Amino acid sequence: MAGPNQLAEFDLIAKYFAPLAAPAGLGLKDDAAILAIPPDHQLVTTVDALVSTVHFLPDDPPATLGWKALAVNVSDLAAKGATPLGFLLTLALPAGTEEAWIAEFADGLGRAAQQWHCPLIGGDTVAMPGPLTLSITAFGTVPSGTMVQRAGAKPGDYLAVTGTIGDGALGLPLAAQWPAFFAETLSNQDRAYLVDRYRRPRPRLALAEPLRRHAHAAMDVSDGLLGDAAKLASASGVALAIEAADVPLSEAARHVLPADQSCLRHVLTGGDDYEILCAVPPDQWAALAAAALAVQVPLTRIGTVGAGEGLTVTHKGVALSFDTLSYTHFR
Amino acid sequence: MAGPNQLAEFDLIAKYFAPLAAPAGLGLKDDAAILAIPPDHQLVTTVDALVSTVHFLPDDPPATLGWKALAVNVSDLAAKGATPLGFLLTLALPAGTEEAWIAEFADGLGRAAQQWHCPLIGGDTVAMPGPLTLSITAFGTVPSGTMVQRAGAKPGDYLAVTGTIGDGALGLPLAAQWPAFFAETLSNQDRAYLVDRYRRPRPRLALAEPLRRHAHAAMDVSDGLLGDAAKLASASGVALAIEAADVPLSEAARHVLPADQSCLRHVLTGGDDYEILCAVPPDQWAALAAAALAVQVPLTRIGTVGAGEGLTVTHKGVALSFDTLSYTHFR
Repeated sequence: MAGPNQLAEFDLIAKYFAPLAAPAGLGLKDDAAILAIPPDHQLVTTVDALVSTVHFLPDDPPATLGWKALAVNVSDLAAKGATPLGFLLTLALPAGTEEAWIAEFADGLGRAAQQWHCPLIGGDTVAMPGPLTLSITAFGTVPSGTMVQRAGAKPGDYLAVTGTIGDGALGLPLAAQWPAFFAETLSNQDRAYLVDRYRRPRPRLALAEPLRRHAHAAMDVSDGLLGDAAKLASASGVALAIEAADVPLSEAARHVLPADQSCLRHVLTGGDDYEILCAVPPDQWAALAAAALAVQVPLTRIGTVGAGEGLTVTHKGVALSFDTLSYTHFR
Repeated sequence: MAGPNQLAEFDLIAKYFAPLAAPAGLGLKDDAAILAIPPDHQLVTTVDALVSTVHFLPDDPPATLGWKALAVNVSDLAAKGATPLGFLLTLALPAGTEEAWIAEFADGLGRAAQQWHCPLIGGDTVAMPGPLTLSITAFGTVPSGTMVQRAGAKPGDYLAVTGTIGDGALGLPLAAQWPAFFAETLSNQDRAYLVDRYRRPRPRLALAEPLRRHAHAAMDVSDGLLGDAAKLASASGVALAIEAADVPLSEAARHVLPADQSCLRHVLTGGDDYEILCAVPPDQWAALAAAALAVQVPLTRIGTVGAGEGLTVTHKGVALSFDTLSYTHFR
């Protein structure tokens, strides 16, 4: 029998997760969940798995992990121009997972669900003789035929990105307390900012509707700006050129770079950004920029789309080459 | 670097899984998948996680594992009266997973996808420093308002189950080559039948439409007949009574029981059945039975629904008590 501090029963799951369920739903008490899609809309769905030690640190606060697990999926929906509808949660828990861990995880997850109007609609909880693993399938809707695809970029488009790039990738070694040369140069405020960007990504959902109206293609930046840009180029059958000096950086990241130039590569390839990369026809740029301004999402041009294939990266006009463009699980 | 026999690249995934994708889809080349729901229909969705050593044996043939991973989800859809639409796959692979394993797994998965017209529409593949873990989210549709719920059973309903119960639970120790007293008494043909029932469940999809028309409530039997019946009773706010002597058994299972009476408990609580338990109003019974006959799905009355709560089990009228009603992950 499990002790009082251990996850003893599925009842615990019901206790902490049922409150996250949609009031109009089946209250997680059926084998399946049901979703009504508005007329003339399509369903957009995405899934992301997170494995302890691979995707997050075992001592990441459970509340921010819960937040991030949903945020990374909502970020995919936002990049596709979709409005969130709900999510399924699969939780594979090692023996001895403490009730307090579950409670805090559910709290963070619930805050994210509330923030993006994306309720829990079902899931599966299983035992795991290995690292804690979770998987979220998120659902959203778009007016039929308007999902913003990866495969839509056209020669002549501007390439743009939201927010700032590299903060999450710089925040990870700080959160993990790995030795990082650049850490010496940072104020406590900069450190806190970067760690927060790693732990609590804010999906750019406010830009979903403007992207549907004005962008040819979009994807969220999660594995690394350059690797994700290469994927967009490949899916669209175009060539992309990025000018690294134009990639928007936060004040904290700008405090890092002069101290350690190798960090530029880390910023461009490290991932964990959850910003949106998009290809926009020149005649739509002003409208998209105005819409982004109206919803207070910074949007910056970082390159161009051309005929051909592949990704070219320059820094102040000088070509850069990279051994690796993004985080990869298998090599 | 991975050797030639190891999973070296995401390219391998594309090689084996892209052929399973819907021809009309985005070819797994986007961050999200898109689904069109027919007018006046709702989406039904379910997720099941499978962890090596918990849900399957590490040396289960990869082809049958691929088949079963989708089958268990299609079984949930069938019990809800839904028509399959597609599925998302999350695969968390330990280092050193061999290409041959992936190829065989994808082959079995693809056969199931073809069998039930349920194509792969997207997913996520990640590294796993632990046991191989996979999760499938399946999608189906029902005419709006017709999903067969757990929570619909009413006093006076008949309780019925499809197929035969206990074969999967008896097949597991045989597949695992665990010492099982009853194994001595079985012919090779019986063994092969039970192992196949454990490894290659056949969801009762042919009964989906009749269930929508005639059943008050249904769920698939996966964790164990008695435990799942108790869940149906609880969700519906009714009492269920099951007569164990009426529970349908295969010929192979009937060869086991005389040799080892303790097997009756295992049959009733062991799970891995992927049959459908349903509550049917008496005035709809003849119509449902005829529809089941027409699609060649055996359907047997095993009990009744009454006012009150909880589950009563008798054997030839004598009350039976159970320490555990089904498989549970946490106790």
